[in-house]
Amino acid sequence: MLQGHQSWIFANRPMIKATGVSGGPFEANGNLANEFDLLHEDLWMGEETYEKAHRVLLEEAMHAALSKVDCQKEEVQFMMAGDLINQLTPSNLAARTMQIPFMGLYGACSTSMESLALASFIVNYQGAKRILSGASSHNAAVEKQFRYPTEYGGQKPPTAQWTVTGAGVALVCENDGTKGVPVTTSATIGKVVDMGITDPFNMGGAMAPAAADTIIAHFRDRQIEPSYYDLIVTGDLGRIGQKATYELLINSGLKINSNQFKDCGLLIYKDNQPVQSGGSGAGCSATVLYGHLLNQMKKGIYSKILVVATGALLSPLTFQQDESIPCIAHAVAIETEGGME
Amino acid sequence: MLQGHQSWIFANRPMIKATGVSGGPFEANGNLANEFDLLHEDLWMGEETYEKAHRVLLEEAMHAALSKVDCQKEEVQFMMAGDLINQLTPSNLAARTMQIPFMGLYGACSTSMESLALASFIVNYQGAKRILSGASSHNAAVEKQFRYPTEYGGQKPPTAQWTVTGAGVALVCENDGTKGVPVTTSATIGKVVDMGITDPFNMGGAMAPAAADTIIAHFRDRQIEPSYYDLIVTGDLGRIGQKATYELLINSGLKINSNQFKDCGLLIYKDNQPVQSGGSGAGCSATVLYGHLLNQMKKGIYSKILVVATGALLSPLTFQQDESIPCIAHAVAIETEGGME
Repeated sequence: MLQGHQSWIFANRPMIKATGVSGGPFEANGNLANEFDLLHEDLWMGEETYEKAHRVLLEEAMHAALSKVDCQKEEVQFMMAGDLINQLTPSNLAARTMQIPFMGLYGACSTSMESLALASFIVNYQGAKRILSGASSHNAAVEKQFRYPTEYGGQKPPTAQWTVTGAGVALVCENDGTKGVPVTTSATIGKVVDMGITDPFNMGGAMAPAAADTIIAHFRDRQIEPSYYDLIVTGDLGRIGQKATYELLINSGLKINSNQFKDCGLLIYKDNQPVQSGGSGAGCSATVLYGHLLNQMKKGIYSKILVVATGALLSPLTFQQDESIPCIAHAVAIETEGGME
Repeated sequence: MLQGHQSWIFANRPMIKATGVSGGPFEANGNLANEFDLLHEDLWMGEETYEKAHRVLLEEAMHAALSKVDCQKEEVQFMMAGDLINQLTPSNLAARTMQIPFMGLYGACSTSMESLALASFIVNYQGAKRILSGASSHNAAVEKQFRYPTEYGGQKPPTAQWTVTGAGVALVCENDGTKGVPVTTSATIGKVVDMGITDPFNMGGAMAPAAADTIIAHFRDRQIEPSYYDLIVTGDLGRIGQKATYELLINSGLKINSNQFKDCGLLIYKDNQPVQSGGSGAGCSATVLYGHLLNQMKKGIYSKILVVATGALLSPLTFQQDESIPCIAHAVAIETEGGME
């Protein structure tokens, strides 16, 4: 059901029945290593190219999610996924392997929540019993495509972020009444916001106004206060973007405590890892949410969270053509109900 | 509502209340020139790059659709669109201009029906009152990215297809009971099919098995016969792919008359235009459907059609890495009801 102009309420509370999270070597040394289902010791993952390794990450995450609830892929109606690679090559190839009817999505690093919002809407209205919803990124594949091959050893400024190597997938299912399982309760679809930033090494700063715009729209549409949520977590704003977003929100009049406001890009790595302003990539919010944050919810640490995945819709072409960076953010609310039994 | 494994029924019959269709010079000399709202005399459209011209096509098509029913863009909840350019650059930039909450989709040339299927599902369940759903392509932008700049004058074999320069957009709205307006009644989401074809100059042949797979799934899920439809029209299979698909369907046991089975890629250009096997591109099915075919429906020539948009999910990277071409097709049924009054 539409509530307000750009938000949906999911009255039937679709369940995130299982998740699968895979990662690479940098994530294995990170802050949340224990919350991944699989971690790889190198970036190749037994494949000949980084893009094929990227595909493996997504396939492994999907298989991990399915195996936890003993679900066969033939029982899943739809796969909704995307990544940062041109023409979504890794997701397309994973859809070929999985043989699940497939909808490709592109919202850069906001893809994780674009996918979860749409999957939740479809399951909420009995358009599917089960949907695999996810997003992924691979550091070396993304660096090669958007910037320079890592082998060049290019220097980066402190505003730059480190693309996560990882895939995060949710198996979104009809609510069967099981207690303690996270459910999606609402979503807000963002519009493109572009404040004129042109520096591809400061994407957190570029994305901050889009994140704030979607968060403000969410509270306006739903007519609730930020205190409704235990946690409001952005996708991959990093140190600079997260601070800017928080200031925009406070200036808008929203009452948000700073300890209630986190960023997946600041959670995933250790302080001593050389990730400059933090983590990023379509796999950042997907792995942190479907690993760490849902584990925290199952432990009872959070019972209501709002996940706001942010995307910088730039390309090497927009940069070459002197365009500024169009940005977007999509939000999904996740709640646990009935407590742990 | 899910019917069968991968199809939806739209019981509330969302309306395609208005459409907008823009095109380029090749389309202006084509078979369906009279069915475009706007046609450009050159490929630049007053812009400095082909990608920015591509963005203009999509913006114009959206404005054309809105103006026909005196609708303001602020009254539209969501824009769902995609194109063939890396990171959906033209669609992202158009979403920035339009300031409508945006969901980016990628299914190569199947994007038009991926978008219409999702928009119809959302409107059917009151997730929006109005959605702008569309797809676009630009010949020179696509050639530059996927093959060679046209200025090279590269030769192509007769199996190759010509990318349409054009955008087609539907304003999908809640059914208000108006008679004679086309409505969407069902959709089938396809899975990736890859029969091992590696030749990017024979995409119609590569896509044929995916088209047949989705059509067979549609009739299996909906439990109806092909005679239910006046027309089954594929997106951009071209001469070779359309013939192959027809044979696959007949061999599967479906009873389809050859005059009931057409292809947008064979409708859009004149026989004397040098388009080899026919038209293609994300704008092909979008312009032919939202211009020509819906006009035919309004004239009463067809009252029930099934549109099957086909996508070749290849990229320059998959080709370089010796991958075969993963293909997909999505189908949407469109019907007019109550006749013309």
